[in-house]
Amino acid sequence: MKKFIIGVMGGAEGASEEVRQTAYELGYLIAQEGWVLLNGGRAAGVMEASAKGAKSAGGLTVGILPDRDAGLASTYIDIPIVTGMGDGRNYLNILTSDVVIALPGKTGTVSEIALALKNGKTVYLLNFDLGNLFIEYRMAGLLVNLHKPSEVIEAIREKSLVLLA
Amino acid sequence: MKKFIIGVMGGAEGASEEVRQTAYELGYLIAQEGWVLLNGGRAAGVMEASAKGAKSAGGLTVGILPDRDAGLASTYIDIPIVTGMGDGRNYLNILTSDVVIALPGKTGTVSEIALALKNGKTVYLLNFDLGNLFIEYRMAGLLVNLHKPSEVIEAIREKSLVLLA
Amino acid sequence: MKKFIIGVMGGAEGASEEVRQTAYELGYLIAQEGWVLLNGGRAAGVMEASAKGAKSAGGLTVGILPDRDAGLASTYIDIPIVTGMGDGRNYLNILTSDVVIALPGKTGTVSEIALALKNGKTVYLLNFDLGNLFIEYRMAGLLVNLHKPSEVIEAIREKSLVLLA
Amino acid sequence: MKKFIIGVMGGAEGASEEVRQTAYELGYLIAQEGWVLLNGGRAAGVMEASAKGAKSAGGLTVGILPDRDAGLASTYIDIPIVTGMGDGRNYLNILTSDVVIALPGKTGTVSEIALALKNGKTVYLLNFDLGNLFIEYRMAGLLVNLHKPSEVIEAIREKSLVLLA
Repeated sequence: MKKFIIGVMGGAEGASEEVRQTAYELGYLIAQEGWVLLNGGRAAGVMEASAKGAKSAGGLTVGILPDRDAGLASTYIDIPIVTGMGDGRNYLNILTSDVVIALPGKTGTVSEIALALKNGKTVYLLNFDLGNLFIEYRMAGLLVNLHKPSEVIEAIREKSLVLLA
Repeated sequence: MKKFIIGVMGGAEGASEEVRQTAYELGYLIAQEGWVLLNGGRAAGVMEASAKGAKSAGGLTVGILPDRDAGLASTYIDIPIVTGMGDGRNYLNILTSDVVIALPGKTGTVSEIALALKNGKTVYLLNFDLGNLFIEYRMAGLLVNLHKPSEVIEAIREKSLVLLA
Repeated sequence: MKKFIIGVMGGAEGASEEVRQTAYELGYLIAQEGWVLLNGGRAAGVMEASAKGAKSAGGLTVGILPDRDAGLASTYIDIPIVTGMGDGRNYLNILTSDVVIALPGKTGTVSEIALALKNGKTVYLLNFDLGNLFIEYRMAGLLVNLHKPSEVIEAIREKSLVLLA
Repeated sequence: MKKFIIGVMGGAEGASEEVRQTAYELGYLIAQEGWVLLNGGRAAGVMEASAKGAKSAGGLTVGILPDRDAGLASTYIDIPIVTGMGDGRNYLNILTSDVVIALPGKTGTVSEIALALKNGKTVYLLNFDLGNLFIEYRMAGLLVNLHKPSEVIEAIREKSLVLLA
């Protein structure tokens, strides 16, 4: 009964127009697969854009908010989880996601990638270059660099088939 | 765009058959209204029964799990929020709920009622007698004793109309 | 090496002068025993008064702050633990305490008593009447009504001897 | 009245003997300054070694534990803060620290460095090469590479004087 939940992380206020456009497209494709989109819930950057994309395709969106007030969620979020935990909610973002996708971001995004890997989640980096950081995860196939939203969807689909087989 | 979220709290392993039946009926009615059912997500007591009821009416269910493993969620939960926070997740339960309904429970349920009131949420007690505890909230109409699931639904509907007016 | 940590809970801004005086005396006695005083860390009510009492006797004080800013701690707190979790930190207060003492308070204090009992901590109520609430814990000797700070100290001392024996 | 708290982060079970030795020395020097040592509290790697070093110099040690059981803390920890939050406690580690020092580690340590920088804390990397990661913080003097414990102590002392001036 549990839905398949895809966490999309990335920059907030500082995200470029190009990154937002990619996030929108990614959200759209996730919803088309029937997967739930999860992000940090705020009305900014990759969060806002990916949720907007998912809603454009009729998807379901969950946002795990750092704030204590649901009213601060993006209007494209169906279900704001209100934590009042600040950046402490980053850990909940990744525990709740079956798979994590990271677009370019800064310290917050890096903290989520690190916590995701530590907790056994596969992370797809979408045009986010981390150099040799976390090299052992990369070599184990748990940290994967990709360049187009459609490639990420394809990779998750293949991996899920393996998991379900 | 945000959905209306009803938190249902109450006993876990110790919940009586009667309480579970009431929780099932309540979940069913919540889903019929088109509201999202939120609870603590585990496969026990009021959590399991209310989620099962909501799913029987085709509703959407969110469970905020104390565990670090989504696999421990009730099979009637669509979206398990995985916190790994133990009882610390009780605070998230109530912050995320627009309205809280409490069925008979023990210490966990009382902690949620207390935190809900402290954070400005109205709490409907469904056959859960707390005596004079939190008397000032009762007098302010923020803690309300009711006896049938349908009465609670009606009360929430009226209150929501006021809020939306 | 671990120090013995006593959690003191109770009202904040709403605490009466009498309750604050009792909290001061209790903090003083805790420090005299060489025990660490732990509370919610804010500069109000039972938190401020108990920490002030402990410092007057040369004790060590730990405050688990709801805020994101250590500067909001009471000046009588030696070690502010900065959580940024709001009332979510109540759970940490009780997990960290070896024993919990509750003075009169409202919803926050009741949530802490409930979580403490649920997690196996003994709770001493110091002039805080909860009627029949949590009656099964009372009958098991895990929830105890007392009336003077010195009685609480004595009860903890006896219980600790049992634990160490 | 608040004590000056130095957070020491770094590898756990995987830390090399050389890293542990450096952590021990660092803990020793921190305690000699009269500063409180804070770490993740567990009986492993940099946590255990830095706490042991601090205790050897008669210092005070605080460990913010991921577990729900104080008994899992290192025996060199005076005050275990019991969170039951798993890696979610990493955020508390850095919020509570006035300054953060990071020795070589993996994903957990990187998550702490990221969260520290995001929340305005200066981070000293002690023989932990992160390449160009967080380059803007490096250029702003908030992320600093150093090679000996004594250099870190000196840098903190100078910075603190500025803060107190």
